Amino acid sequence: MTLTKRDIYVGNMSLEEALIKWQKALDAHGVFDGLDTEISVDNSLGRVAAEAVFAKRSSPFYNASAMDGIAVQFKDTTGASETSPVLLRTDQFTPVNTGNAIPGTCDAVIMIEDVHMHDNGAAEIIKAVTPWQHVRTIGEDIVVTELIIPEGHRIRPIDQGAMLAANVTKVKVRKKPDVIVIPTGSELVQPEQPVKPGNIIEFNSRILAGYIEEWGADAKRSEIVIDDPAVLKETIASAVEQHDLVITIAGASVGTKDFTVNVLSDLGKVIVHGINIKPGKPVILAIVNGKPVIGLPGYPVSAVLTMRLFVRDLIYALQGLEPPVQPKATAVLSRPISSKPGVEEFVRVKIGMVGDKQMVTPISRGAGAVMSLVRADGILTVPAGSEGIGAGEQVEVELLRKPEDILNTLVFIGSHDNILDVLANIFHTAKPPTFLSSAHVGSLGGIMAIKRGDAHVAGTHLLDDETGEYNVPFIKKYLADIPLQLVNLVYREQGLLVPKGNPKNICGISDLARNDITFINRQRGAGTRILTDLQLKKLQISPESVQGYDREEYTHMNIASAVASGLVDTGMAIRAAAQALSLDFVPVTKERYDLILPKAYLDEPRVIALLQIIRGNDKFRHTVEGLGGYDLRDCGKVMYEQ
Amino acid sequence: MTLTKRDIYVGNMSLEEALIKWQKALDAHGVFDGLDTEISVDNSLGRVAAEAVFAKRSSPFYNASAMDGIAVQFKDTTGASETSPVLLRTDQFTPVNTGNAIPGTCDAVIMIEDVHMHDNGAAEIIKAVTPWQHVRTIGEDIVVTELIIPEGHRIRPIDQGAMLAANVTKVKVRKKPDVIVIPTGSELVQPEQPVKPGNIIEFNSRILAGYIEEWGADAKRSEIVIDDPAVLKETIASAVEQHDLVITIAGASVGTKDFTVNVLSDLGKVIVHGINIKPGKPVILAIVNGKPVIGLPGYPVSAVLTMRLFVRDLIYALQGLEPPVQPKATAVLSRPISSKPGVEEFVRVKIGMVGDKQMVTPISRGAGAVMSLVRADGILTVPAGSEGIGAGEQVEVELLRKPEDILNTLVFIGSHDNILDVLANIFHTAKPPTFLSSAHVGSLGGIMAIKRGDAHVAGTHLLDDETGEYNVPFIKKYLADIPLQLVNLVYREQGLLVPKGNPKNICGISDLARNDITFINRQRGAGTRILTDLQLKKLQISPESVQGYDREEYTHMNIASAVASGLVDTGMAIRAAAQALSLDFVPVTKERYDLILPKAYLDEPRVIALLQIIRGNDKFRHTVEGLGGYDLRDCGKVMYEQ
Repeated sequence: MTLTKRDIYVGNMSLEEALIKWQKALDAHGVFDGLDTEISVDNSLGRVAAEAVFAKRSSPFYNASAMDGIAVQFKDTTGASETSPVLLRTDQFTPVNTGNAIPGTCDAVIMIEDVHMHDNGAAEIIKAVTPWQHVRTIGEDIVVTELIIPEGHRIRPIDQGAMLAANVTKVKVRKKPDVIVIPTGSELVQPEQPVKPGNIIEFNSRILAGYIEEWGADAKRSEIVIDDPAVLKETIASAVEQHDLVITIAGASVGTKDFTVNVLSDLGKVIVHGINIKPGKPVILAIVNGKPVIGLPGYPVSAVLTMRLFVRDLIYALQGLEPPVQPKATAVLSRPISSKPGVEEFVRVKIGMVGDKQMVTPISRGAGAVMSLVRADGILTVPAGSEGIGAGEQVEVELLRKPEDILNTLVFIGSHDNILDVLANIFHTAKPPTFLSSAHVGSLGGIMAIKRGDAHVAGTHLLDDETGEYNVPFIKKYLADIPLQLVNLVYREQGLLVPKGNPKNICGISDLARNDITFINRQRGAGTRILTDLQLKKLQISPESVQGYDREEYTHMNIASAVASGLVDTGMAIRAAAQALSLDFVPVTKERYDLILPKAYLDEPRVIALLQIIRGNDKFRHTVEGLGGYDLRDCGKVMYEQ
Repeated sequence: MTLTKRDIYVGNMSLEEALIKWQKALDAHGVFDGLDTEISVDNSLGRVAAEAVFAKRSSPFYNASAMDGIAVQFKDTTGASETSPVLLRTDQFTPVNTGNAIPGTCDAVIMIEDVHMHDNGAAEIIKAVTPWQHVRTIGEDIVVTELIIPEGHRIRPIDQGAMLAANVTKVKVRKKPDVIVIPTGSELVQPEQPVKPGNIIEFNSRILAGYIEEWGADAKRSEIVIDDPAVLKETIASAVEQHDLVITIAGASVGTKDFTVNVLSDLGKVIVHGINIKPGKPVILAIVNGKPVIGLPGYPVSAVLTMRLFVRDLIYALQGLEPPVQPKATAVLSRPISSKPGVEEFVRVKIGMVGDKQMVTPISRGAGAVMSLVRADGILTVPAGSEGIGAGEQVEVELLRKPEDILNTLVFIGSHDNILDVLANIFHTAKPPTFLSSAHVGSLGGIMAIKRGDAHVAGTHLLDDETGEYNVPFIKKYLADIPLQLVNLVYREQGLLVPKGNPKNICGISDLARNDITFINRQRGAGTRILTDLQLKKLQISPESVQGYDREEYTHMNIASAVASGLVDTGMAIRAAAQALSLDFVPVTKERYDLILPKAYLDEPRVIALLQIIRGNDKFRHTVEGLGGYDLRDCGKVMYEQ
């Protein structure tokens, strides 16, 4: 690439203003006109009626027997009773099955159970009938010309049945919007293709196409478009000819490889470029050849969040529908969020119901973090006028999951261990499925979460330097007032992770002071960090002499990843993390990892389920033993109680 | 057909017992085993993961620049400040775009905006950087081996993205259950085929297949199977070979043409036949060749309601899923329901929110009435032990519509007029869509509904015999305490509907006493009934002398339908009904049809919308004028106020 001065900057419009300008442009260009089509009722499930549907024939369209029995004239039955039965001659009745047309001369049906047949063929009855008894008369269900479904109605299976019953076999519906998603960028490669550093897997278009389908449109994905304005121009020009809506991914900003806005200016009219939102600022809204073109940023989280703002409502509008109301929840913020004033920010959050307190916790704000969207329970909007939201404040969150799933979520906060993935998976196969929400903030963070009432359970492996005891001294210090049980999960090996073959011959903590060794640390408050510090202190090694002491990661697996990738030479983590990434492991110590369970939640089905799994589930034991470095001898045992 | 004695009867099992027996049989026959399949992640949207999915590669899998800028070693930047800038030589930095891999020697990125390029190629910076600044390190988003989604998770677009980012391109999912629906009955004809009396349009299989698709399975529909046990046997035997679940429609009972239970006994094992539910009693649950076969009754409402009980949960279970929780509402019953003890009854209901009162009103209980399911807002279960539920009792209702749609529903109760369909349609195209729930109980019924607070608006056309005044005397008599406005909707012509050409030469009310004329009446309390009675009284014709005086219908269109079909010679109704069915019309009188609007609801958006439409909507005026017999001169005018 060449380095050039940046002369263009993306704009800075408010979201509200952008939406108004965009709506005006869409209306002015007739984007919503002429999107109807006639289809067979058999294919109309889920489609939106473009006009009211009226019955073309009555149902039933003849007078039908509602029973198996005989059709009669009611006047022939007058006076019939148990004491004076009436005998109907064979010319006075007609046998009918349910649904049969009754003869024009008849006006009632007698159930077969109420008829005694004589050998000569006469029918004996012991009760007079009322006119039209057991007859479904013409139009009883549907009268010709009657309204079946109104315009704008989304067609359900039962509506299909009613239309067919009323002899309506074709129905005018709103066209399914035909949307194309165009991923751009020379660095993109398709899944399953070989990759080299700098390549990015092209998964964004799949995510967007999936949501577009869920919103009721047909989504196509184009081939990857390389960073070449001519190719991009040709692709967009052809796309607007064939589709109702065109979406490009990446290239929306003003970098040296961001051509989209110029291409769209050449081809049509850019209505909005750049909005005061985070993530998603560089979004482009344009009209080309009367068709809407939306340029989304390339980071997955930015792309998904901006799509929710601009693509979803447009797709519903193209179908003549209002977008569905997103379920919302009111909850209390567990950690403060700071935000740049003037920018409307969308924060992914976890939501958990602990006791009677619904807690919202922000998760990673990195725009590239696709897993943050996988894990998110909701989206919290920080208004443009705000500098942030304080802990303990009440907030409204747009839910990404079903409210009942959130009620079935066990909130775990504390030290990270690979066993949590095993638990999450076994939890989810329970009936009804239980969900595990785990936040990895270290052992001390877990204890503080229990103190605040933010979690059902905390994971901790804190060694008290003075007593040599695990966890209990910290509980007595910080959680003295809270009745709780301390239940062992595992004993596990902690040690130094090194590349396969241990190329730098690291033998223990003392090697961390070597000049040729780079280290990666865990965050403050993590049990593993405290362990590292104790070990360094014991050997009188000052942190300053450890290269990389200040670089922090939040999980064992991130430490393992840093070592496996060659980023650093070593880091402290559990053996399971070494085994998962095929690293070598230099044992340092064996430690106890316990769960803190406040007694207030011990009766919760979620907590009962957790204890059942760790105390008796074979799949759990078997899987954990396979991870390496774990000792389950006390798993599920109460180690301490208060 | 031949008449034979019925020796078999369907059983009488409780729903609870039937469900237990059925579940046991399904488990015993391994119906839920081996239903997994591996598919491409690209095709996995909405499918259910059959096992946990773990990352196969970290994301990013290289250290990536998070910005457009230059990659540097952080130690080269030490000490840089505005007063003492640092100049980086060309060998000390590498230009990078967002997403590029940073060279192995580098450990930080500086944004291009913070770099001043010199002409000799050197880069001037005025701020030291921190290690790993603007670098997305390996595994920052996803660490290889990390859990992406647990077993049993329904795959969303974002999950597809995360799997592809983690180099997972295939995923083991629960198989989509493959379900076949077999409609049976020689009387069935396909839509668009010519029909004759006794034929029934085969729409049931479409309704059922639609629901089956909505529940996540693949639904196929077989050809119609005629009433021949050999053909049915062959069809079912072949269906169980090729499908996971077989559903037959009709023939489930023990009529002369009901072969299904015998065929299933021959082929496999009938687990349950006959359950104490209404509608749906004759349902059959069987296992053939290890596959579940469900025989549903043929009446559409019975078929749909029994399918909700037996097919829905099974389809979810085959996918390894819990069925979704159906939304429920608590409401007050407006009319009593009587029910046969020992039978669990499912009643279709309308639900309306009037003021702060959520009202539930049962609708038609006829099992053949497909429109009753189209119109239903919910299903109310009357337990087997109950003899019924009284008016005013609180009941829980399973919702068939979205709760917000119910809140947007205007509840109309009163006299029927064809204009209501026009209103319903225009209402529904409003944004947000408003719904019109109309119950046709006659003018007096409407007045009583207003008195009880059950409706937002009532329609009435009651002529006071003494004063010759419309509606106001009745309001003063029954609604004296309620502040309200009486707003005119239309003037309309009432008269006698006769077949085209008026074959019996009916000239007016006096002809109703003729011996050769059959009449059909409206129900008691209907304005049209009162009008008829007044006209008869005026001419001193006794009701007894009118043939058919006791036969009652609830709407103008049903009167028209009875005349059009030849069921009767004439009936009293509005001109629009005659015009809709191309009948001739013998005018009797012109009457005023008004709306009663309690002031308590005049500020409700739904009521405002109603008044806006009748006072100013061109489409409304135009459509109503096209219906025939209406005079809109006072439409929307307040005729009386109290």
